[in-house]
Amino acid sequence: MGGGALREEINVLLFMDPGIDDALALMYALLHPNINVVGIVSGYGNVSKEDATLNTSYVLTLANRKDIPIIEGAKGPITGEISVFYPEIHGETLGPINVPPSFALPVEPFSKSFELIETYKGNITVIATGRLTELAMLFVLHGDVLNEYVNEFFIMGGAFMVPGNVTPVAEANFHGDSIAANVVMERAEKVRVYPLNVTHKVIVKPETIQKISSTSQNPFQPLILPIYTYYFEAYKKQWPGIQGTPIHDIVPLMALVNDELIQYVQRKVSVELSGEAKGESIADFRPKTLVEEQKEPSYIAWGINEQAFLKELTTILIRPVK
Amino acid sequence: MGGGALREEINVLLFMDPGIDDALALMYALLHPNINVVGIVSGYGNVSKEDATLNTSYVLTLANRKDIPIIEGAKGPITGEISVFYPEIHGETLGPINVPPSFALPVEPFSKSFELIETYKGNITVIATGRLTELAMLFVLHGDVLNEYVNEFFIMGGAFMVPGNVTPVAEANFHGDSIAANVVMERAEKVRVYPLNVTHKVIVKPETIQKISSTSQNPFQPLILPIYTYYFEAYKKQWPGIQGTPIHDIVPLMALVNDELIQYVQRKVSVELSGEAKGESIADFRPKTLVEEQKEPSYIAWGINEQAFLKELTTILIRPVK
Amino acid sequence: MGGGALREEINVLLFMDPGIDDALALMYALLHPNINVVGIVSGYGNVSKEDATLNTSYVLTLANRKDIPIIEGAKGPITGEISVFYPEIHGETLGPINVPPSFALPVEPFSKSFELIETYKGNITVIATGRLTELAMLFVLHGDVLNEYVNEFFIMGGAFMVPGNVTPVAEANFHGDSIAANVVMERAEKVRVYPLNVTHKVIVKPETIQKISSTSQNPFQPLILPIYTYYFEAYKKQWPGIQGTPIHDIVPLMALVNDELIQYVQRKVSVELSGEAKGESIADFRPKTLVEEQKEPSYIAWGINEQAFLKELTTILIRPVK
Amino acid sequence: MGGGALREEINVLLFMDPGIDDALALMYALLHPNINVVGIVSGYGNVSKEDATLNTSYVLTLANRKDIPIIEGAKGPITGEISVFYPEIHGETLGPINVPPSFALPVEPFSKSFELIETYKGNITVIATGRLTELAMLFVLHGDVLNEYVNEFFIMGGAFMVPGNVTPVAEANFHGDSIAANVVMERAEKVRVYPLNVTHKVIVKPETIQKISSTSQNPFQPLILPIYTYYFEAYKKQWPGIQGTPIHDIVPLMALVNDELIQYVQRKVSVELSGEAKGESIADFRPKTLVEEQKEPSYIAWGINEQAFLKELTTILIRPVK
Ligand SMILES: [Ca+2]
Ligand SMILES: [Ca+2]
Ligand SMILES: [Ca+2]
Ligand SMILES: [Ca+2]
Repeated sequence: MGGGALREEINVLLFMDPGIDDALALMYALLHPNINVVGIVSGYGNVSKEDATLNTSYVLTLANRKDIPIIEGAKGPITGEISVFYPEIHGETLGPINVPPSFALPVEPFSKSFELIETYKGNITVIATGRLTELAMLFVLHGDVLNEYVNEFFIMGGAFMVPGNVTPVAEANFHGDSIAANVVMERAEKVRVYPLNVTHKVIVKPETIQKISSTSQNPFQPLILPIYTYYFEAYKKQWPGIQGTPIHDIVPLMALVNDELIQYVQRKVSVELSGEAKGESIADFRPKTLVEEQKEPSYIAWGINEQAFLKELTTILIRPVK
Repeated sequence: MGGGALREEINVLLFMDPGIDDALALMYALLHPNINVVGIVSGYGNVSKEDATLNTSYVLTLANRKDIPIIEGAKGPITGEISVFYPEIHGETLGPINVPPSFALPVEPFSKSFELIETYKGNITVIATGRLTELAMLFVLHGDVLNEYVNEFFIMGGAFMVPGNVTPVAEANFHGDSIAANVVMERAEKVRVYPLNVTHKVIVKPETIQKISSTSQNPFQPLILPIYTYYFEAYKKQWPGIQGTPIHDIVPLMALVNDELIQYVQRKVSVELSGEAKGESIADFRPKTLVEEQKEPSYIAWGINEQAFLKELTTILIRPVK
Repeated sequence: MGGGALREEINVLLFMDPGIDDALALMYALLHPNINVVGIVSGYGNVSKEDATLNTSYVLTLANRKDIPIIEGAKGPITGEISVFYPEIHGETLGPINVPPSFALPVEPFSKSFELIETYKGNITVIATGRLTELAMLFVLHGDVLNEYVNEFFIMGGAFMVPGNVTPVAEANFHGDSIAANVVMERAEKVRVYPLNVTHKVIVKPETIQKISSTSQNPFQPLILPIYTYYFEAYKKQWPGIQGTPIHDIVPLMALVNDELIQYVQRKVSVELSGEAKGESIADFRPKTLVEEQKEPSYIAWGINEQAFLKELTTILIRPVK
Repeated sequence: MGGGALREEINVLLFMDPGIDDALALMYALLHPNINVVGIVSGYGNVSKEDATLNTSYVLTLANRKDIPIIEGAKGPITGEISVFYPEIHGETLGPINVPPSFALPVEPFSKSFELIETYKGNITVIATGRLTELAMLFVLHGDVLNEYVNEFFIMGGAFMVPGNVTPVAEANFHGDSIAANVVMERAEKVRVYPLNVTHKVIVKPETIQKISSTSQNPFQPLILPIYTYYFEAYKKQWPGIQGTPIHDIVPLMALVNDELIQYVQRKVSVELSGEAKGESIADFRPKTLVEEQKEPSYIAWGINEQAFLKELTTILIRPVK
């Protein structure tokens, strides 16, 4: 589909920790004609809550979308531990860009997130591309009514039988708050999980970004190449010889509006809470399960159409802002 | 001190799960001339979030204090587990009393709790007599600023080297959300913990309640004896031969306005997160620690003046509402 | 190499839980001209300690090798839990064969295992194809001297980034005593681990076994086809559509005497002790680690030459006993 | 009773980690007319396995009891962790005494412990005054037959609702191998546990030891005062103002031959495996349990007759060796 005008707008509430990856996902969401961002919960994760919120403010300001409420998220995981940031990947505020504090927009209190869900009930999708702390807290506060109100939960996180990105077996979003990740996997019905298995499959190369950068007509144009380049440099240190970067956090958003992009398998997902395998996403892929019909309402993204991803990326990121 | 008129009113934000025990504590707070209840976060614990909120509404309605905001708390612990209630102790809604749903007052969203803390910053005390889920979430959302804004945290919970009340080593509030309890013990500075060690020391006998009941002039009068009696019956099953009941949740409130009531020791407190000892409160009482000066800002209530407690109880619970 | 007469005999001390799979491995070891079995520690695992020991006795009796000491192993894991057996895979005593108790040979006490290691020190290889309980206990009792005395530890166990066989992420030997498995991975130097990644890659089909059965000249001949058939039937229930069975426990023995059979990677291995991922084998396969030289003394079998395996199998299993 | 000649000798198999405390217990056992030490399993704990074994050798040599087999125990806990010693309490080999290596007697392999239990089955008591690693391994190897063969298990360990001696809640023997301690508590029937609750109640003062030292006629006489003094000095650092020392490890031995010494309660005991409360001994002392008849076969020592202890101590420690 991708940019088709006939499809109705989908209301999304974003839970993010921008960060470069999330910032690109947010730009994509703001530029896509079929996505209506009703609010952004902005918390710790790749960067501190404060930086995440400043970066969100910056992107919304550039897009002239100060009308979208920024909602304050968590400062750290549900265990109360002081969270650790990875500035070597995500830079000081937004990669190479030091967003001036003057960009900071007012933030709404956390409960605004549930108010938005209530307001749009039956017609809202939750998309989480950061730690799952805030979403878990919503389940702790409100319980199963979330499953009634929210159409689907799209979650970037996990790594199934592939190496993690922060430990040998764990991906950063699930590892950063393993208890919260498990709460969401246990409590949310109608979940779609986008693990490293697919998000890492599409490598966006410098030439793709250069092409976007040279043709884009929107206010994000000056950012795209510098933040990508910064991100790419950081990636090369972790994946020597890599030819570009994945852009994990765009995947669930792109999947939302491109039905053919992703192939799914249905499995119950759980998350290891502690120990050596802390934050590992676990689902049963033993052979027996392959032939049994899965009635599980959770979907795990298992395949991705690389060409469709790249085409959609280059199509949307050059659009004018709405 | 106890009811002295010269002392200024102390602003308190209550975190409660009423339940009989908390309901009595709330009545005490509403009746005490030196306590100004600025809000009540009402969540699961002894009873469900819904019952707790209805009971809170009921007590505020009787007191003609519908102006005090009721703030919605959690439905279960931070782990997302479905919480277990103990109706055999706490009855259907409020012990023997089935509060009609029509009493339900409107509730404020959770974030109202932090707004109140901001509003009264430097001049507010937090008192928690239920699970610590909500307070932990405030630390997860807001971090150390809570220690700046809140004068002190008074916590009913824990059991140090005495049997617990829900497991051999754990008290119900700490056990019900051990992770949250540990978050609060780790993150909150200026904590006062009121464990079973003191709360169980004062046994309120039927004759005391009968005396209160026969002399009280306030709208809680018709409730006092029935809910106490219900509570007492439940206690006898757990403590065969007990001559009355402790009223755990009043203790921190009474301690707040009666400086001589409690003797404290200063110790760092932590909470066992899982396993056989899940929810156990741990502090170091080894002999060596007795003679070393403790610089720990956490206080553990270690002794209680039984006569002062009973006198204060009978004095306050018969007062007219403010 | 495989059956070459020029190579010297290698002394091996086996730690086993026969079970069909281990029984076949034991037959292989007894038939191979370059393997000298100096003792067999026989414990719980696939079957009970008693059945494992009876099956071991039976195989040794058939081979006319009552001279090889059988050493008694553990009855269950190091945690004292009652272990669970899987009779649906491993049958009553030896798959379809009910070995009469009269076959039971005398057993040596557990300490005999260390005595053998001392006797053959510098010239002995340990091969474990069951739970790692006994080997862990040797480390607990004797510590690092084992690393001095034992040339190498060959371990069948683990599953790296592939589904487990008893849980979604864990293989039976590591899961059955995760603490013991971790002890061995932490304490043993010069380890070679043979995980499901390789052991499951070679599927032995019925025609292969039929060929062996029809040409074998040794006393195991009457057993081979029935126990394989039993095993195959059990496997089909777990792996619908599977065309034969893996024979996991032969792999480390075959690797011992066939240098070209296996390709290895060098990684530190650890084992998750508890939780959802209990028993999972963990090693770091993140991209960065691929290009860094690994100095780790532990080897993980990562590739297997299927044709060589099958050729060796059919060559050795038809040999006359030594 | 204490030294009565009419009572038959009781066969005991000791599991020890001498250490001063255990050395005194061993002397007591060797001197007592009703105790027949059939073997000593000597492992890590207060000191290293090597030092423990040397100290055991030394005491047996002094007593001219080289006939008693010394059996080698563990080098560390069942988790394979490197164990930590407390030389500040237990000194280099035996407190202030540096036992020359030439005293080392030959040691029997670990399996000798089970052989002795078999030999004396129905007529043997196990007494453990160190970590429970070795005893747990016996249950792992032999299972419930131990409960058939062994009359009773006497265990020095644990601390119930009193401060521990190595952590705020854990005693050293249970903490040093919490998994093993739990194995023994779960698997052993007919257990008597001697926790700090009683072992710490009797404080042996310098004058008592001086009296023993001045009247003793046995070969331990030259050791008693120096090792006590050393031990006392170490204790004072932990318990400022203490007037003497407890001698924990003598308590179970003295209880064995003095029926009136100890009062017991019957409770099921479990041990916290990990976390903040690692090694804590847990039993249910909630009020309800006080009035219910306990059918639990485990006994916890709960009271001790201080005068009887001191009288027995001074009586036995001055006896000539048998
Ligand atoms: Ca993100
Ligand atoms: Ca309460
Ligand atoms: Ca096996
Ligand atoms: Ca000891």
